[in-house]
Amino acid sequence: MTTLEPVKVGICGLGTVGGGTFNVLTRNADDIARRAGRPIVIQQVAARRDNPACDLAGINVTNDIFEVVRNPDIDVVVELIGGYDTARELVLEAISNGKHVVTANKALIAVHGNEIFQAAAEKGVMVAFEAAVAGGIPVIKSLREGLGGNRIQWLAGIINGTGNYILTHMRDEGRDFNDVLAEAQALGYAEADPTFDVEGIDAAHKLTILASIAYGVPLQFEKAYTEGISRITSEDIEQADNLGYVIKHLGISCRTDEGIELRVHPTLIPKQRLLANVHGVKNAIEIMGDAVGPTLYYGAGAGAEPTASAVVADLLDVARDMVTEHKYRTPYLAFSGIIEQSDQAPQVLPMENIVTAYYLRLMAVDRPGVLARVATILSEQGISIEALTQKEATEGELVPIIMLTHRTRESSMNEAIRQLESLADVAGSVTRIRVENLDDNA
Amino acid sequence: MTTLEPVKVGICGLGTVGGGTFNVLTRNADDIARRAGRPIVIQQVAARRDNPACDLAGINVTNDIFEVVRNPDIDVVVELIGGYDTARELVLEAISNGKHVVTANKALIAVHGNEIFQAAAEKGVMVAFEAAVAGGIPVIKSLREGLGGNRIQWLAGIINGTGNYILTHMRDEGRDFNDVLAEAQALGYAEADPTFDVEGIDAAHKLTILASIAYGVPLQFEKAYTEGISRITSEDIEQADNLGYVIKHLGISCRTDEGIELRVHPTLIPKQRLLANVHGVKNAIEIMGDAVGPTLYYGAGAGAEPTASAVVADLLDVARDMVTEHKYRTPYLAFSGIIEQSDQAPQVLPMENIVTAYYLRLMAVDRPGVLARVATILSEQGISIEALTQKEATEGELVPIIMLTHRTRESSMNEAIRQLESLADVAGSVTRIRVENLDDNA
Repeated sequence: MTTLEPVKVGICGLGTVGGGTFNVLTRNADDIARRAGRPIVIQQVAARRDNPACDLAGINVTNDIFEVVRNPDIDVVVELIGGYDTARELVLEAISNGKHVVTANKALIAVHGNEIFQAAAEKGVMVAFEAAVAGGIPVIKSLREGLGGNRIQWLAGIINGTGNYILTHMRDEGRDFNDVLAEAQALGYAEADPTFDVEGIDAAHKLTILASIAYGVPLQFEKAYTEGISRITSEDIEQADNLGYVIKHLGISCRTDEGIELRVHPTLIPKQRLLANVHGVKNAIEIMGDAVGPTLYYGAGAGAEPTASAVVADLLDVARDMVTEHKYRTPYLAFSGIIEQSDQAPQVLPMENIVTAYYLRLMAVDRPGVLARVATILSEQGISIEALTQKEATEGELVPIIMLTHRTRESSMNEAIRQLESLADVAGSVTRIRVENLDDNA
Repeated sequence: MTTLEPVKVGICGLGTVGGGTFNVLTRNADDIARRAGRPIVIQQVAARRDNPACDLAGINVTNDIFEVVRNPDIDVVVELIGGYDTARELVLEAISNGKHVVTANKALIAVHGNEIFQAAAEKGVMVAFEAAVAGGIPVIKSLREGLGGNRIQWLAGIINGTGNYILTHMRDEGRDFNDVLAEAQALGYAEADPTFDVEGIDAAHKLTILASIAYGVPLQFEKAYTEGISRITSEDIEQADNLGYVIKHLGISCRTDEGIELRVHPTLIPKQRLLANVHGVKNAIEIMGDAVGPTLYYGAGAGAEPTASAVVADLLDVARDMVTEHKYRTPYLAFSGIIEQSDQAPQVLPMENIVTAYYLRLMAVDRPGVLARVATILSEQGISIEALTQKEATEGELVPIIMLTHRTRESSMNEAIRQLESLADVAGSVTRIRVENLDDNA
């Protein structure tokens, strides 16, 4: 069957994803060779320590990752060490040595991707990163190739499993954020320092990558708006439920006439939407194209073998395209000439300029005229109210007022909230959660 | 930017999908050229009549589809005429003339695919058919490339929009099959002769294609089991709802030690599953891989531009790979050497040999001992009951007995039903609907 030379792979890093990749490549080697038309063999592995899940008998193992990128017998370097600086140095040296690169490193691509793609283009090598976004879900391939006939209008995704695990359990069990976070940490779903996940940085890395591929613009992680879920209360989850919504931590990118929205924040989603029904550590991304309409991609966003699944898919692409002239390959960010023409690309919108609907919750003294004052402030900012509920209370007591607004500009909402918080009748700060109201009916 | 020669396309058929393809290629031409690195131009269109949705000014139009496949200026023939015989002849002649082929024709691929791929392999040309399954959802690409590292274990999908539209409205509005079918016909969602859609033939075509790609076996449409939705009653939908299930028309293919299951039939799905929440004309396919676990792909399964989205994605693949040697291209059915080695491939299981859980509804006279007789028959066939409900009634009246069984072999269930229907206490025939109980937790 197989008549072509094997593709020789060097794996840098043998942690969770490295171990998974090693095992999938080994276990499914025969099927993979039948798919690629040639074997994909592990030529060398660089690891600082053993991974007990992997049987390394007969494998060339080094503890120096740079040995792999300098190994003349290696065609493709698989970077699975994570982090920024060393990974950047490793990948750039691999490229400089003419090797193709496969990486699962979202931080590296989101932050150093423009530089890496520029270097790779000059050397004519591939850099593949399906595993960097949403683990095993083939969303990069779907967006970059499968939807290639479309002008992408927006995308919205649950792209951090830790955050979704926490929100799912807060909702199902009526528990508090800190309580569920502690459980997630005990189960290994959250890191000891959970900032990266729960504050939305990890999701913003992934969103940055998706948006660049969707619209053909350079990576601009530094312009992403990021808001975490640590201030979401079980009260807000319950109120959202009463209104027919579920709160999810979404990454949203929308192409508007003014520019590109790039934002990660807690979001109310109508219950009947598929995204609202994605639970636990699972990920899902909804993508709207002008021809196809809404599509959705769901699966495991992390974990050893789900992520390995994406790494191996990239290796299959490399195996097929390594003989192809570079100009015929799919561009890294879907469109050719992105970085060279970045001055002509649409700009990322400042958060003040986005337009969305809002959920607001404020605690007000239940006395005559309060609602009128609240409504006047919103009205003066051009914000119209879609729904309002106020619990009954004894006059003079604090009572929550819950509102859903129609779409308005964030800057108007900021000003309205400033004024609401300065009202004598309003206690504490106003809770504001954006509502996902992207058009699902193209 | 663009330095490569344009790719010259001939479109055969300018109906719904042909018109959509023409319009998407025209409207998004600049973006498509930036993606492909070269323009994709419509060199000729063959149509028996005008499509008022298309502006054909300046286009070379013929009414002879065979002129397109003989046109020496055309690189890629896009077959959008549908049907079996003429489409087969057209595609085989295009291949014989050394042209690549893109088709949306599921019937053609499911029935004549083995012959077509064999001919194309001999000529070294591509035959792409993303649009043949689930319209705009890039599920062929995801299964064949994105999940290429996996051993696929099963897949299950809502792959006929007409059937899903009917079942959705039957459930939401408590209406009967014939009533909703008439409405779907009036709205253009169902054909005047709905057999192809509601009896599952269209879904079986698509399932056949998906299964071949999933497991690397030849296309075997003639071995697919097909059961339609025309006998589903609103009573069964309501009973399923009470038990926590939704009835969907699923195509299911599962790889077992004994062979490959290939079956289309109404199916009970637990309400919380994403597949149960796919409504109206939308499609979704869940795919289980050994590395990635469950993944799901959702979107529009039909319509002019959703299907065009898939056709254009295939054209982009052809544009990139037409310079590549054939042996480096992704095999038509994911694995190389499938048709040549078909004697070694796993066989499609006869329906009698599948193993699944069941929902049963029977009308029995409410008299002492009936339940015991029913339970004895099931027990003697080795079938265990998971749940049983019997409505209260006056003794001697007919009353429905509803049961959910654990997994059992179809042949045992056939025998049990034969015996149940021969009981004097049981009136009429036993309704049997299979329950989707594929493992979602790999």
